[in-house]
Amino acid sequence: MKQLNEYNFPEDLKNMSYEELDSLSEMIRTFLIEKVSEKGGHLASNLGVVELTIALHKVFESPVDKIIFDVGDQTYDHKLLTGRLNDFDTLREYNGLSGFPKRRESEHDHFDTGHSSTSLSFAYGMSKARDLKGDSYSIVPVIGDGSLTGGEAFEALNNIGLNKTNIIMVLNDNGISISKNVGSLPKHLSKLRTSKNYLSAKSFVKNNLANIPGVGKAIFNGLRSIKNNIKYQILKDEGDLFEQLGVTYLGPVDGHNIEDLVTTFEMAKKLNEPVLVHVITKKGKGYSFAENDPSKFHGISPFDISTGEVLNKSTKPSYSAVAGSMVTSLAEEKNDIVAVTAAMGDAVGLKDFSIKMKNRYFDVGIAEQHAVTFSAGLAQSGLKPYVFIYSSFLQRAYDQIIEDVCLQNLPVTFMVDRAGVVGQDGETHHGIFDLSYFSSMPNMTVFTPYDENTLNEAVKCAYELNGPAAIRYPRGECGVLEPEEHIDNPDVLILGCGKMAEKAKEVSMILRDKGIKADAEFISCIKPLTLPEISGEKIICTLEDNVLSGGFSDSVNRKFVNSDVTILNFGWPDRFIEHGKVSELEEKYGLTAERITEKVLEYI
Amino acid sequence: MKQLNEYNFPEDLKNMSYEELDSLSEMIRTFLIEKVSEKGGHLASNLGVVELTIALHKVFESPVDKIIFDVGDQTYDHKLLTGRLNDFDTLREYNGLSGFPKRRESEHDHFDTGHSSTSLSFAYGMSKARDLKGDSYSIVPVIGDGSLTGGEAFEALNNIGLNKTNIIMVLNDNGISISKNVGSLPKHLSKLRTSKNYLSAKSFVKNNLANIPGVGKAIFNGLRSIKNNIKYQILKDEGDLFEQLGVTYLGPVDGHNIEDLVTTFEMAKKLNEPVLVHVITKKGKGYSFAENDPSKFHGISPFDISTGEVLNKSTKPSYSAVAGSMVTSLAEEKNDIVAVTAAMGDAVGLKDFSIKMKNRYFDVGIAEQHAVTFSAGLAQSGLKPYVFIYSSFLQRAYDQIIEDVCLQNLPVTFMVDRAGVVGQDGETHHGIFDLSYFSSMPNMTVFTPYDENTLNEAVKCAYELNGPAAIRYPRGECGVLEPEEHIDNPDVLILGCGKMAEKAKEVSMILRDKGIKADAEFISCIKPLTLPEISGEKIICTLEDNVLSGGFSDSVNRKFVNSDVTILNFGWPDRFIEHGKVSELEEKYGLTAERITEKVLEYI
Repeated sequence: MKQLNEYNFPEDLKNMSYEELDSLSEMIRTFLIEKVSEKGGHLASNLGVVELTIALHKVFESPVDKIIFDVGDQTYDHKLLTGRLNDFDTLREYNGLSGFPKRRESEHDHFDTGHSSTSLSFAYGMSKARDLKGDSYSIVPVIGDGSLTGGEAFEALNNIGLNKTNIIMVLNDNGISISKNVGSLPKHLSKLRTSKNYLSAKSFVKNNLANIPGVGKAIFNGLRSIKNNIKYQILKDEGDLFEQLGVTYLGPVDGHNIEDLVTTFEMAKKLNEPVLVHVITKKGKGYSFAENDPSKFHGISPFDISTGEVLNKSTKPSYSAVAGSMVTSLAEEKNDIVAVTAAMGDAVGLKDFSIKMKNRYFDVGIAEQHAVTFSAGLAQSGLKPYVFIYSSFLQRAYDQIIEDVCLQNLPVTFMVDRAGVVGQDGETHHGIFDLSYFSSMPNMTVFTPYDENTLNEAVKCAYELNGPAAIRYPRGECGVLEPEEHIDNPDVLILGCGKMAEKAKEVSMILRDKGIKADAEFISCIKPLTLPEISGEKIICTLEDNVLSGGFSDSVNRKFVNSDVTILNFGWPDRFIEHGKVSELEEKYGLTAERITEKVLEYI
Repeated sequence: MKQLNEYNFPEDLKNMSYEELDSLSEMIRTFLIEKVSEKGGHLASNLGVVELTIALHKVFESPVDKIIFDVGDQTYDHKLLTGRLNDFDTLREYNGLSGFPKRRESEHDHFDTGHSSTSLSFAYGMSKARDLKGDSYSIVPVIGDGSLTGGEAFEALNNIGLNKTNIIMVLNDNGISISKNVGSLPKHLSKLRTSKNYLSAKSFVKNNLANIPGVGKAIFNGLRSIKNNIKYQILKDEGDLFEQLGVTYLGPVDGHNIEDLVTTFEMAKKLNEPVLVHVITKKGKGYSFAENDPSKFHGISPFDISTGEVLNKSTKPSYSAVAGSMVTSLAEEKNDIVAVTAAMGDAVGLKDFSIKMKNRYFDVGIAEQHAVTFSAGLAQSGLKPYVFIYSSFLQRAYDQIIEDVCLQNLPVTFMVDRAGVVGQDGETHHGIFDLSYFSSMPNMTVFTPYDENTLNEAVKCAYELNGPAAIRYPRGECGVLEPEEHIDNPDVLILGCGKMAEKAKEVSMILRDKGIKADAEFISCIKPLTLPEISGEKIICTLEDNVLSGGFSDSVNRKFVNSDVTILNFGWPDRFIEHGKVSELEEKYGLTAERITEKVLEYI
């Protein structure tokens, strides 16, 4: 058999036998494990969809047919099969391949995803455009069972089902998102999974179709007319939830059996109506450490293949771990504290909380909007919810934060993890808008802790506030930042909020070394904003890990706009920030201590 | 019979006979029609739930039991029955009763709503708090069939069903939100409506329960044990969608038969599990003009009761009408234009479009998130969607605008209607955050037209842009604003964006009258922002119909922070703005031309 890089995918898939495709699956798995063990990345989800991705590219003609991945952290296999194998060494690196679909990388990518539950809506839009233009290609969104619990997916189903639009929805059901899935829909899926024999291509053809006169080998032609037979023989009535929404349900199918997958997709392709193909996969498939702990291998740093252990583990705890444990400790004292998260409990440091105070811990699934309004309801009844959600995912609940929490002035505390630029996950995962959106929300207090002590203070202070609060903290290690010795009447004052406090200190030190009277202030709360008295012809610098528009700098500017001070604003520019190491991105956009210092020196 | 104001509601309901309650319904209808005809407000929805609200207050013990209204524009009956009858003359007036639930008004209001599809999440939060505290009161969210198509409602159902939490969900099914409802879920409901006989209390007890040995009059005791009989006799299998999500379905019930409603709610109360009671109501019930055109009477200005015609109709067209007709005209020329809205087609001026270009018109239902991602999909396939959604409701799609439109740099134009302070609908309906959130979004162009000409230019310019655009315009009349004659080198420059352009002109005229060299600039695009050259010790004023944080003023401040000009920012303060006439609110918050002028004079 050839080496992976000797094929011309996806074309070559068309003529390969199922045996060859099985071997190919093994080669891809080995390749993925090796590469991700070196670079880090999303492993478990990609191991789970090797056969599924191969089957999709065997049946559909990408890029004419449109394969759209929900969330998009499961597209490594797709990238390997669409001409990006040789670039794979650059995965998630600055200027290298993205870990998510990217239209700029390939004509086989149609939608730059990263957030959950959008693929059905996007596919529905593409399908309506296709129909208006009189085209007839297939549109194939691939959505996980976790993503399906996000409300937008339901909004799309509600439209797709009604309009009987030809879309082939592939439900990649592995029972897991980042954490284990939550809800009555996953429960329904699990019932389907366990109560039914898999839809097997061979036995299906042999046992069922053979008995229908005149069908025989003609199974793939005229399938429409026997659709009802197929459906009801396979499903009986368990698929009703989708059927009630006007969608034809096919499945469940073994997601690791390429022949069964191909047969089912061929069926779906002929139906010319909204179809949901229920595919059962195992997250982490083929690598025992990932199969046994798929959450750990969801997004993982470089690791040792033979032990599954992460290499070069940091000795300092992460902000996530510290934040989670602080809220857990406080909750042990205060029994009105409850913790809420949206399918990311372990990742935000709540594992301990979920074990120790099970009845006060709520993982609502991938459902950020619901998470926020639900928390408002808890608070209205006298509890104090701490809501743990990544900054960029919390964008999903912008309206609920304003209307259901701030307007009611309820004591809900948002634990905004992964705020600022996060690095290698790129555009969709950087949390660089939260200071802007929180700042404009009435009643909201906005904490920007920069170390263990200020994080602890914020967690405690939020408890006493009796109103909405946001505590935003970055990805990465959480230490203790020692303040420098302040000087009187500095000529340059560097204001650093959040993790940029440390940078403010560095800049101030470099300037002092150059004989300039510089001082740094660490800002751990930007709303309300308390600043030292400043007057005269000084220079003030604002440093923030956020876009400039509407964030910390705008608040400072508003205070000093009619004064004589010169203000220099440092933050992320008005563009999407690509992936790469945080240090590389800071260098590119002028946010290292050195680059900031240079800029200040120009103004002195 | 007594007059309405001689009762002590809700207590008095408990002892009234069904005949008396029917008479009460009539009195309330007459009262509502009279009051709304004088003041304007939400009529059709409130006429539809008179009996439903009476039945709820007869069965449940408010405020111990919690009745929560989704959206909240159907709470007039509830207000009348909870001690607010005598204040009803102040409805929607400045300092008067709100048209929506307000916790500050009454202990019977638990959640200040205004946006759709949140009641189930909030109720679920309250229920979890209740259970943790060991209480046992009932929690009764009342949600319309339109609201149920919003994704958040599904996210909540997905949690409620799994956890078997005791919540009585009342589905108020009238087939209509602001426009006619959309989707396979409403279709499913309509199937339930038409395929089944109503669940009638009398015949149910007589025909079914009488045959079960030992039940007889004990129907309301030990109901749990015969639950399955009840369910399956009433429903057969049509309620499966809810049942599959773990929720017990009861219905359909005639929403205008108080006895049937009371009997069913009593049943639901005994079940101690998640129940959905499907109530069929007629929007506008009892007032023929409203029954025949419920959209017109959804939110209506003062009208003539005998003809149903709106009084003092404006002669100028509204911004909504102008915007809708401009996009319609352009779409007749350019066949790649499509229009998208979320259950508000007529209200945003798209009626004509929906008739003339039916296949290019998409009302996706109450589903703002889906509307935006769906539009991204349309754009990705070569079309140019114009998405019409009210400013405050578009907040629901904040994340999708960033991730699915801006990140992909797709040509989707947001027609942001009802931007700025809208007046009597109050806090939840003012659109005063959009300039802030759009300004921080990379790739977004933000138009702030202030009259017919600039609106027209924006609509055309957005078409050519080939990237995301937002065009935000206010509620109210759209005319033509004549520019004043500019003067050279003014001492005071007033920059007015959007509808504040007119105010800028007024301020400038008043100042000129006082001998001050003032000039006004009308700003119809704030991003990118082009300003005239300004230097020296001038005064610049920024005027915007938005909060100050992150909006127009912050952009101007950023440009001039290191110059010698003095900048005065005028916009809405950092708090929620109550309801009242726009002019009253502007007066209170210092945004009339007179108040702005006074402030400027202080600085001269």
